[in-house]
Amino acid sequence: MIQDTERDRLMRRALALAANGPSTGQNPRVGCLIVDPNGTVLAEGWHRGAGTAHAEVDALAHLPAGAARGATAIVTLEPCNHTGRTGPCAVALIEAGVSRVVYAVSDPGHASSGGAERLRAAGVEVVGGVLAAEAEAFLADWLIAARLGRPFVTLKWASSLDGRAAAADGSSRWITGADARLDVHRRRAASDAILVGTGTVLADDPALTARSADGTLLPTQPVPVVIGTRTVPADAAVRHHPHPPVFYPGPDLGVILGDLHDRGIRRAFIEGGPGLASAFVTAGLVDEYLVYLAPTLLGGDRLALGDIGVARIDEQRRLEIDHVERLGDDLLLVCRPRALPSTPGTRTASPETTPADTRHAEPARTETRI
Amino acid sequence: MIQDTERDRLMRRALALAANGPSTGQNPRVGCLIVDPNGTVLAEGWHRGAGTAHAEVDALAHLPAGAARGATAIVTLEPCNHTGRTGPCAVALIEAGVSRVVYAVSDPGHASSGGAERLRAAGVEVVGGVLAAEAEAFLADWLIAARLGRPFVTLKWASSLDGRAAAADGSSRWITGADARLDVHRRRAASDAILVGTGTVLADDPALTARSADGTLLPTQPVPVVIGTRTVPADAAVRHHPHPPVFYPGPDLGVILGDLHDRGIRRAFIEGGPGLASAFVTAGLVDEYLVYLAPTLLGGDRLALGDIGVARIDEQRRLEIDHVERLGDDLLLVCRPRALPSTPGTRTASPETTPADTRHAEPARTETRI
Repeated sequence: MIQDTERDRLMRRALALAANGPSTGQNPRVGCLIVDPNGTVLAEGWHRGAGTAHAEVDALAHLPAGAARGATAIVTLEPCNHTGRTGPCAVALIEAGVSRVVYAVSDPGHASSGGAERLRAAGVEVVGGVLAAEAEAFLADWLIAARLGRPFVTLKWASSLDGRAAAADGSSRWITGADARLDVHRRRAASDAILVGTGTVLADDPALTARSADGTLLPTQPVPVVIGTRTVPADAAVRHHPHPPVFYPGPDLGVILGDLHDRGIRRAFIEGGPGLASAFVTAGLVDEYLVYLAPTLLGGDRLALGDIGVARIDEQRRLEIDHVERLGDDLLLVCRPRALPSTPGTRTASPETTPADTRHAEPARTETRI
Repeated sequence: MIQDTERDRLMRRALALAANGPSTGQNPRVGCLIVDPNGTVLAEGWHRGAGTAHAEVDALAHLPAGAARGATAIVTLEPCNHTGRTGPCAVALIEAGVSRVVYAVSDPGHASSGGAERLRAAGVEVVGGVLAAEAEAFLADWLIAARLGRPFVTLKWASSLDGRAAAADGSSRWITGADARLDVHRRRAASDAILVGTGTVLADDPALTARSADGTLLPTQPVPVVIGTRTVPADAAVRHHPHPPVFYPGPDLGVILGDLHDRGIRRAFIEGGPGLASAFVTAGLVDEYLVYLAPTLLGGDRLALGDIGVARIDEQRRLEIDHVERLGDDLLLVCRPRALPSTPGTRTASPETTPADTRHAEPARTETRI
C-alpha cells in the first residue's frame, strides 16, 4: 500500500514529467507514472502534443505486455474517455490490467471527460483530487480554456512608473530594457496567439514574432491576431509573419475569443495598444496581467491603460500580485484578478476611522486619503 | 597601528552609533569612537540633536582628563570648525591631545567646514574618506541639504498599477492597505516638513500628522506646509496640527525650498496632490521617490502624476529602483533620480536593431516597441 506522503511525492514527479510537454497547443500537459504496489516506479510517460501518445499510453508503452497488471497509474489529469487521434486512455489502462488509478484534476472537457467513471465501471479503483491545488495551478491556462470555451488571456503592457506607455509625442523606445523585452518574447513563444489592435499595427508596424536576443525566430511562434476596423497595409510586417494573420473587425471580444478557441487557440497574449487592453479589462476577460514597469517618469496623456469603466472606487478591479521579478533595471509584476473584486477589507483597521483619530474632526468631515 | 580592515570595522561601528541620533532636525547624525593605538575602544559617542554635545565631545566626555592623549578619533563626519551652541569639535579634539583623526565624509557646511585643516595646523594627523560611500549614503539627506541649501525632497504617491490615484469620481479610499499607510506615517514622522497643495487641502482636508495604527500621534511631527493660492478654510484640519502650518502662494518651488531650509527644514515630504507632485518632478527637485503601488486597476483621468514637461522619449526622467518592499498586498518602490538622465543604454543590444531582425523590414521602417 502506498502512503499518502509517498503518493504526493509520486504525483509531484508526474507533474514534473508533465512539464516536459509543450506549453502551447490544444492539449494539456500531462504526466503519468506506473508504479507497483510497493510504490516502485515501473514506467514514466508524458504527453508531447496533439497527435502523439497521451501520458498514460506513453508510460505503458515502456512496459512489456502484462507488466502493468495489478499496478497503479499516477496521472496528473483524469484519464480521457475520448477517441480522437488516439484512443481513450481509460480503455488503455483497463486493457493493461491496471488495478488502481490516482489522478489530480478532473477533466473538464466535454468530449474527453468520463474517464474515471469508465474505469470504475471496469472494476478499477479510482482516487481523484490528489495534489489537486498544485496540479490546478500548473494547468490553470488549459483548465480555463476547457471550462470557459475560450483561450486563457494574458494581458501585457510596459509602462513608466506613472503608468505611461509613451512620451507625449508617441515615442516609446525604449521604456523597458533588453531583459524585459526578452522576457516578453519568451512569453510570446509560450502563447498560441498574440493579439493587437489595428491602431498599434498602423502606429508601430510590429512583427509580432517571438525572437531571441540576436533577432532569430524562436522555435514556436504565436498566431498574429489583429482586431479593429482600420485597414492594415499590404506591406505591414505582420503580413510577413510565419503564420498568416487572423483579422477580426470586432468589437465583441467574447465572440472573437470563442472563435479563436474553435481554431485551437488556448493561450492568447494581448499586447495592446491601450484601447484593446482597456477593452479586455472592461470586459472582464483577462486571466493574467504582466505589468513591466520601467523606472522612469513620462507624464502626459499616453497611458498604458485607458478607461476601463470604473466610475467609483468600489468598482475598482482588484488584482493580486502573484510574484515580482527584477528584469535588469525593470520590474515585472505578474498579477491575476482577485477572487472577490472590490473588497477593501482593511477599511475598519485604518487609522482614519478610529475614534482616537487625532485630527479633531467634526463628525461629518470628509476623511483624508492617507 | 590600526590596520585598514580594523579601521573600516571601527568606522562601521561609528556609523551604527550615529544611527542612534534623531533622523529629523538640522544637524547630521554623527558617531565617534576614541581608540588607543592598539585599536581598543576607549569611548563612544553620538550626537542627539541640536543643542546637545556633538559626537566627538560626547565621546570625550566619557573619559577622564588626559585619557585621550595620543589616541585616535574615528568619526563619521569631518569634525566641525564652528562655534554654535557648542564649541568647535576640532578644538575639543586638539585640547584633548588626540594625535590622529580618521573621518568618513567631508563637512560641506559653509560655517562648519575647515575642521580637518584646523586639526592639521595643530599637528594632528588627519585621514579623510574612510568608508566614504557608506557614510555618504547614510547621510544622503543631510548632505544634499547642506550642499544645495534646500531640504532633501522625498516625493510620495500611491497609485493603482495603471498609475491612477483615484477613481473617475475622485473617490480613492482605500487604494493601498493598512501596512502601506502605516509606512507613510512612519516616514512622515522621520521628515521635518510635509508639503501639500491647496487643492489637496480643499479636496481631502488632510490632518498631515504622523500617526500610529491606533490613530495616536507619533512622537515627532512634520511641520505642515501648504502651497497654492486657494484659500484654506479656518476650520481646515491642517490648522489643528501640533505645528502651525506654513503657507506659500508659490509658484517658485526653489524659493520655497530655500525658505524652508532657512527655517531649519532639512527633510521635506511631498504628499501631493498630482499638481504639486508634477511641479516638483518638472523642476528636478526630487531626491527620492516613494511609489506605493496597489494591485488594482482604475482607468480614467485621475492620475497620480500629471504633465512633467516630457515631450519626447529622450526627455524621460529616468530613475533607479533602490529597493522594492511588499507591504501587505501592496508594493513600495523606493527610487532615486538616475545620475545620467535619458540614457537608454541598452538600445544597441535590442533585438529590434540587429541585422538579423526577421521582420523583413525596409530600412526606413519605424520599428516596433517590443
